[in-house]
Amino acid sequence: MLGVRPRRCPPLSVPAPAPAGDPASIPDGHPGRKPTIVREDLIAAALRLIGPHRSVSTLSLREVAREAGIAPNSFYRQFHDMDELAVALIDLAGESLRRIVGDARKRAVSGRSIVRGSLETFMERLRADDKLLHVLLREGTVGSDAFKRAVDRQLRFFEDELRADLVRIAAAQGLAFHEPALVARAITRLVFAIGGTALDSPPERDEALVDELAQMIRMLLRGAYALSADHKPARAP
Amino acid sequence: MLGVRPRRCPPLSVPAPAPAGDPASIPDGHPGRKPTIVREDLIAAALRLIGPHRSVSTLSLREVAREAGIAPNSFYRQFHDMDELAVALIDLAGESLRRIVGDARKRAVSGRSIVRGSLETFMERLRADDKLLHVLLREGTVGSDAFKRAVDRQLRFFEDELRADLVRIAAAQGLAFHEPALVARAITRLVFAIGGTALDSPPERDEALVDELAQMIRMLLRGAYALSADHKPARAP
Repeated sequence: MLGVRPRRCPPLSVPAPAPAGDPASIPDGHPGRKPTIVREDLIAAALRLIGPHRSVSTLSLREVAREAGIAPNSFYRQFHDMDELAVALIDLAGESLRRIVGDARKRAVSGRSIVRGSLETFMERLRADDKLLHVLLREGTVGSDAFKRAVDRQLRFFEDELRADLVRIAAAQGLAFHEPALVARAITRLVFAIGGTALDSPPERDEALVDELAQMIRMLLRGAYALSADHKPARAP
Repeated sequence: MLGVRPRRCPPLSVPAPAPAGDPASIPDGHPGRKPTIVREDLIAAALRLIGPHRSVSTLSLREVAREAGIAPNSFYRQFHDMDELAVALIDLAGESLRRIVGDARKRAVSGRSIVRGSLETFMERLRADDKLLHVLLREGTVGSDAFKRAVDRQLRFFEDELRADLVRIAAAQGLAFHEPALVARAITRLVFAIGGTALDSPPERDEALVDELAQMIRMLLRGAYALSADHKPARAP
């Protein structure tokens, strides 16, 4: 009925070009193509090692190198330290998820509810054993400062896009909106907080969870419109 | 202006009587008083070891025993394993925080806003270097299943109390409330999610954060009242 289709999508893939600031930083004396591949290999190795009971912040450099099949020293050709790898992983996770949710939102403009469309896409990704998304959901509150800042930065990108959407949709209906940035922030943090708990509940709960989140978001939106009307009683249509 | 007074309160103390299911489970042959003290000692030792970059789930039994000054084998007189210690810690954290926020809410009934009163108390505790609260905020998404369930259980206790409060306050004003359990859940999860990020921002941000949260909560409450009015247009006063 809700159309949450677990495991329909393939997991987010680690794309071939490295996320940011990469090839230039590779020390000299190494052949042309190999380093870029190895960087992705290290990210993929880290992803294989983490899971519901294993946080990125507990991985050792030695472990990741072993999993990737390289000597620990070769690790430094790609990343300064484990922190840099963890941040690259977070950035990658945020970018992929924003792209996917953005696509869902675009599709939803014609017809289906944007809120539900985005929430359902989010849950689909979650159930597609998408470890990149799991990293983003689970690990914002543990780990190094650099790591937490990276998660927070990704959440803020989401918030910014959502805020722009809210303002645009309200304007199209001739409505004003009380504190759209705050509403976007509340929605993003709720979806991530409650989405994070979905990882530990059975998939049968997903439909109820999407329902709950959709209702919470409706309350927030409705409240924001009502408060906006309070503040500007003589608003132009 | 807002009255957020960081570091005014003493940290939550680990109380003398053990949280739950304790003394009876101690194996025979040990003197009367000592075991209870040692259980609290182990919890205190674990609290000393964890911090912003060190999660409870990464502590080893050996480490905690060493910090408490006992042999690893003596650990088992108090807890089956590290998981049981972590769950005891979570339960303790939840109980203490509920007591403190509950007191703040009672005080707030006469005069000050209940929402602000509770939020300010929450932030005060956070800044009082209250490691028990930090555990609750940071660690709900990593760690063992037993551990996550314990955090979730504590959050649900909060939600239940908040829901009862919302219903009571609305009834006193002759109002109905759309889905009070959902509103309570949204508020609790938002405060914990955004409160968790406060741990990593400077205390100067606290006032703005309390403001943000208070506004988000206002939107939710306002939206819930508005939706309730939609659903029951012929409500009795």
